[in-house]
Amino acid sequence: MKTFTLKLSGHLFDNADLLPTYVNLIRELWVNGYRMVVVTGGGSLARRYIEIGRSLGINESLLDMLGILASRLNAQLLASALSDIAYLPIPTDINTTLSAWATGRLVIVGGFQPGQSTATVAMLVSEALGIKNLVDCANIDAVYTSDPRRDPTAKRLERVTIDELMGILKSRTVAGTYDLLDPWALSIAQRGKITIHVVSCNNPDALRRLISEGVGAGTVITPS
Amino acid sequence: MKTFTLKLSGHLFDNADLLPTYVNLIRELWVNGYRMVVVTGGGSLARRYIEIGRSLGINESLLDMLGILASRLNAQLLASALSDIAYLPIPTDINTTLSAWATGRLVIVGGFQPGQSTATVAMLVSEALGIKNLVDCANIDAVYTSDPRRDPTAKRLERVTIDELMGILKSRTVAGTYDLLDPWALSIAQRGKITIHVVSCNNPDALRRLISEGVGAGTVITPS
Amino acid sequence: MKTFTLKLSGHLFDNADLLPTYVNLIRELWVNGYRMVVVTGGGSLARRYIEIGRSLGINESLLDMLGILASRLNAQLLASALSDIAYLPIPTDINTTLSAWATGRLVIVGGFQPGQSTATVAMLVSEALGIKNLVDCANIDAVYTSDPRRDPTAKRLERVTIDELMGILKSRTVAGTYDLLDPWALSIAQRGKITIHVVSCNNPDALRRLISEGVGAGTVITPS
Amino acid sequence: MKTFTLKLSGHLFDNADLLPTYVNLIRELWVNGYRMVVVTGGGSLARRYIEIGRSLGINESLLDMLGILASRLNAQLLASALSDIAYLPIPTDINTTLSAWATGRLVIVGGFQPGQSTATVAMLVSEALGIKNLVDCANIDAVYTSDPRRDPTAKRLERVTIDELMGILKSRTVAGTYDLLDPWALSIAQRGKITIHVVSCNNPDALRRLISEGVGAGTVITPS
Amino acid sequence: MKTFTLKLSGHLFDNADLLPTYVNLIRELWVNGYRMVVVTGGGSLARRYIEIGRSLGINESLLDMLGILASRLNAQLLASALSDIAYLPIPTDINTTLSAWATGRLVIVGGFQPGQSTATVAMLVSEALGIKNLVDCANIDAVYTSDPRRDPTAKRLERVTIDELMGILKSRTVAGTYDLLDPWALSIAQRGKITIHVVSCNNPDALRRLISEGVGAGTVITPS
Amino acid sequence: MKTFTLKLSGHLFDNADLLPTYVNLIRELWVNGYRMVVVTGGGSLARRYIEIGRSLGINESLLDMLGILASRLNAQLLASALSDIAYLPIPTDINTTLSAWATGRLVIVGGFQPGQSTATVAMLVSEALGIKNLVDCANIDAVYTSDPRRDPTAKRLERVTIDELMGILKSRTVAGTYDLLDPWALSIAQRGKITIHVVSCNNPDALRRLISEGVGAGTVITPS
Repeated sequence: MKTFTLKLSGHLFDNADLLPTYVNLIRELWVNGYRMVVVTGGGSLARRYIEIGRSLGINESLLDMLGILASRLNAQLLASALSDIAYLPIPTDINTTLSAWATGRLVIVGGFQPGQSTATVAMLVSEALGIKNLVDCANIDAVYTSDPRRDPTAKRLERVTIDELMGILKSRTVAGTYDLLDPWALSIAQRGKITIHVVSCNNPDALRRLISEGVGAGTVITPS
Repeated sequence: MKTFTLKLSGHLFDNADLLPTYVNLIRELWVNGYRMVVVTGGGSLARRYIEIGRSLGINESLLDMLGILASRLNAQLLASALSDIAYLPIPTDINTTLSAWATGRLVIVGGFQPGQSTATVAMLVSEALGIKNLVDCANIDAVYTSDPRRDPTAKRLERVTIDELMGILKSRTVAGTYDLLDPWALSIAQRGKITIHVVSCNNPDALRRLISEGVGAGTVITPS
Repeated sequence: MKTFTLKLSGHLFDNADLLPTYVNLIRELWVNGYRMVVVTGGGSLARRYIEIGRSLGINESLLDMLGILASRLNAQLLASALSDIAYLPIPTDINTTLSAWATGRLVIVGGFQPGQSTATVAMLVSEALGIKNLVDCANIDAVYTSDPRRDPTAKRLERVTIDELMGILKSRTVAGTYDLLDPWALSIAQRGKITIHVVSCNNPDALRRLISEGVGAGTVITPS
Repeated sequence: MKTFTLKLSGHLFDNADLLPTYVNLIRELWVNGYRMVVVTGGGSLARRYIEIGRSLGINESLLDMLGILASRLNAQLLASALSDIAYLPIPTDINTTLSAWATGRLVIVGGFQPGQSTATVAMLVSEALGIKNLVDCANIDAVYTSDPRRDPTAKRLERVTIDELMGILKSRTVAGTYDLLDPWALSIAQRGKITIHVVSCNNPDALRRLISEGVGAGTVITPS
Repeated sequence: MKTFTLKLSGHLFDNADLLPTYVNLIRELWVNGYRMVVVTGGGSLARRYIEIGRSLGINESLLDMLGILASRLNAQLLASALSDIAYLPIPTDINTTLSAWATGRLVIVGGFQPGQSTATVAMLVSEALGIKNLVDCANIDAVYTSDPRRDPTAKRLERVTIDELMGILKSRTVAGTYDLLDPWALSIAQRGKITIHVVSCNNPDALRRLISEGVGAGTVITPS
Repeated sequence: MKTFTLKLSGHLFDNADLLPTYVNLIRELWVNGYRMVVVTGGGSLARRYIEIGRSLGINESLLDMLGILASRLNAQLLASALSDIAYLPIPTDINTTLSAWATGRLVIVGGFQPGQSTATVAMLVSEALGIKNLVDCANIDAVYTSDPRRDPTAKRLERVTIDELMGILKSRTVAGTYDLLDPWALSIAQRGKITIHVVSCNNPDALRRLISEGVGAGTVITPS
């Protein structure tokens, strides 16, 4: 796994301790020859602006755009901290991502267009660039059959196919897991034959071990 | 319904007789004070380039982009034929659509980004511009419970909610109706509270009657 | 004063109560025939990202860019809440501001380029569009000879020339008033012969009275 | 001839058998160290949209634009099939072609602006990049003194100067050879001192032999 | 002739006396309801930069680009002096010209792409916008059968068809009249059925009389 | 000093003898492994267009833009003469400069936005790219305590801190040195910890010796 897409939960950007660790870890991976596209979520910043926007009566398309701008601000922050290796300005669609990638630099993006989560963006970018592995640094350590914070019988899934996961998602209604698991992102992952490795963003070591040793993922979601 | 989104099936652009009729009809509506955003499909041109592309091993994201470029070529053809009232160049995302709309001219778009059908684009644009009605000039005259060309028991739906339609879509697997009915487009329609009026693109009079008299839709899909 | 530039302190966007009031007030002014360019500051959002960025070792040019993106997110929020009259997407330099203004819609911008405060942007835009009055909705109600929160002898200035104000600014070093009073913004105001009306953003009525009755400014800064 | 411009007739994109051969040949040349800018014609797709557009009363400038978009769709198809080495998105003018070339990747373009054939584009790009040889994979195997399909006395020209060719072109009026031989393209070739090697696009081996062995061109058109 | 294209010789921008007259005349025409696209030449500025560039060994495509940038600087100067009615920024291709025109403002452009004179640009823009009359404020008062400054038998042409003019141009080789008379511009004028009215830019009154009274053109060049 | 910013006085572009020397010198430095961003001034061309523009009543923001376009024309001329190593098109803001720099080519820029001198641009670009040395090829050989052409007691400064220089600038009012010494540029230099090496642009050898031997600067301005 020398080339992969790295999806970073927006949660990371709310955490003053974690962010420097990830900046250093990404640089270290880069220096060691790993190549990646990083996709950043919007996190609490996106949620706050969407909440204010909703109270002002803004429609959902334009609320999505606020979330996208928040995720791009996070991408800009990360790329600025890595400006010796990262591409700037932040690409804003598939086309500009492709031309940024062509320069050989570290590419970092946020969201693209209303109606698409950053998880979907991560899949589309992976597919367009022919990247077969996506590491999802999520605000949870793995995929469970139900919400482990509420359901003591929740079972952690070590390995699951996208089809199986789609079946589980249909039968339950856990709010707030949208970012990790929306069906559109999964359907792109399936057609693009992308394997998703879920690790907790609160544990940077999981990412390091996954990349360098091939272990450490909470859940591996396979295209078939 | 003085302001609406007009989704035109790509099928229209394969038909030398229908296209001039629609050009004249759109101009006539415009002159009579109707305001609309037109979204064009990619039709057989999109299918042909995607088919060639697939045989060349191109990935699905880039195949989507070929389809998007095909739909934009159709949009450009239509806008050129209406260049006295239409906005050029063809907007390529929500942002450029908003600024084109701000000029007060007829706005015509094709697809936006990989991973989104032109039906989804039509919903997102409607939502962003606060447009509550979408006329879908489709390559079929109405929504049926199953494919009427194959199933003699297929029942035509005069009026259906998005929720009901989603239920029907889940339980069947009719290929080739993707353009009209994909669940992502429907979910945006639902959150945007958009009513969809399905008419046959092979019968321009249905569109005229729908706009001027409020009748003629094969199926009305309501957000609730 | 039918046409003016409205500089809104970023402070406004931290205040869930004030923002809706300003949204309504701007729409009301627009409906009554007032025409304006709104320039939004970055506020606490800008400060937070700049602070994180500085701790990550980001250089000042790129920190400025983070602040600019924050101010544009505020501009996007406001324009989305006024999307029936406001221009979108948010212009990002003098050129795109000019073309947005040409559409006759309400134009809202954030920052432009590193090395320029949003106050400077407000002056440059006023100058380029031939606007002679700028209303500065600041996080203070007027200009004082020194910081009134610390210095009981601070004297409020009702009317002051830019030259006099420059003199006062040179002789003191009040931190945190940068946004209101940086010398570059003032020098552009002087060459552009722009009169600056300072009102408190915490008191929307001051803005309403200033526009409709010509009174209410805490300080009037005149070009000569 | 390690660096050259490769003009591909739009005819190629109507031919399901030829296209994969050219995709492989271009990749093989690239891997062997050859560097090229590829310019694609619009072919039958361009002709079809221009024909429909003309029947709809579209003016010639906008018809040219339809042809340009068709040629860019062909360029996009080819670049997507070569996305591991080709630059995306497709450059649309001299400026974006220069910046794409600067990345060191394979650059593929279609048309640029109304009033210019893709042959002219090929000459302008060659000139701007300092490329002295252009291989024209045309829908004919060589230049003839008149149309060989109609005139049994037509003489094949092995080597001809641009001046001589201009003279021949003036004295005859063969329709349909516009793409290969328009005087504007030739005049740019002359000022840019570009040698044109005409080979038949129906015979990919001619291109391979020309590049690897220096033989195989049907006609060599020299600047003087 | 309420709508026309106005081609201004670059010569005008070398003349401190003429330029203000034209600024006022264009505003006066605008206020009186005339609508126009103005195309500015590059004049002596273009010639100077092209000359320096040629001595530095720059290729002809990039020299053309220097001339284009010079013509755009002239366009920017004129548009800035008319910034209350003119569109800014200066459009740089057919697409941006169309969207500028859609705003209803005065549109001013310079050159577009290498390989095209500003005369060709004027024809393409006229054609794309459906404008049938072009006023050419040239650095000569009319078209002559040969150069009147050198040939005492030169005959002034009051009215000439494009075909006749092409015939005359082929049979002589007057250097320095390129700007007025290049065959590519004429061929676009012919296909676009554009009538060209040549007046001397040194005599602003000729333009005023032509527009307001329909007389005053030195030569009228008709498409057939 | 393997990487530096090179600020070239616009004066250079008025001098037919100097320009080729600088073109050769920059290529020679590049070939020898030096990496640089070049920032070109607008020179007499900028002054001429600003003067004409002012006589036409153009506002200062738009006059600044004319000066910026003039400086970009100079940048385009230089980049065209170095088109084998330089990036084209000319970047127009910090973002496009960063992406041009990412290609590894020689980056040449002119001005960015109204209200900023090209000296300020040079500082912002240096800061954004982490470049710590700026060579200022100025139209004077060093910084003096007052204007040496008028004041026989003027003292040449070999080494001066930015703070000291700011003090000197405040206490005198030498017109025409704006380009070299404006306080905004100096304040960015200070925050970016950039050392400025002033050499005379009339003496290219000073630049060569400064780069290769570390001597030859008329004045060294240090951040502290």
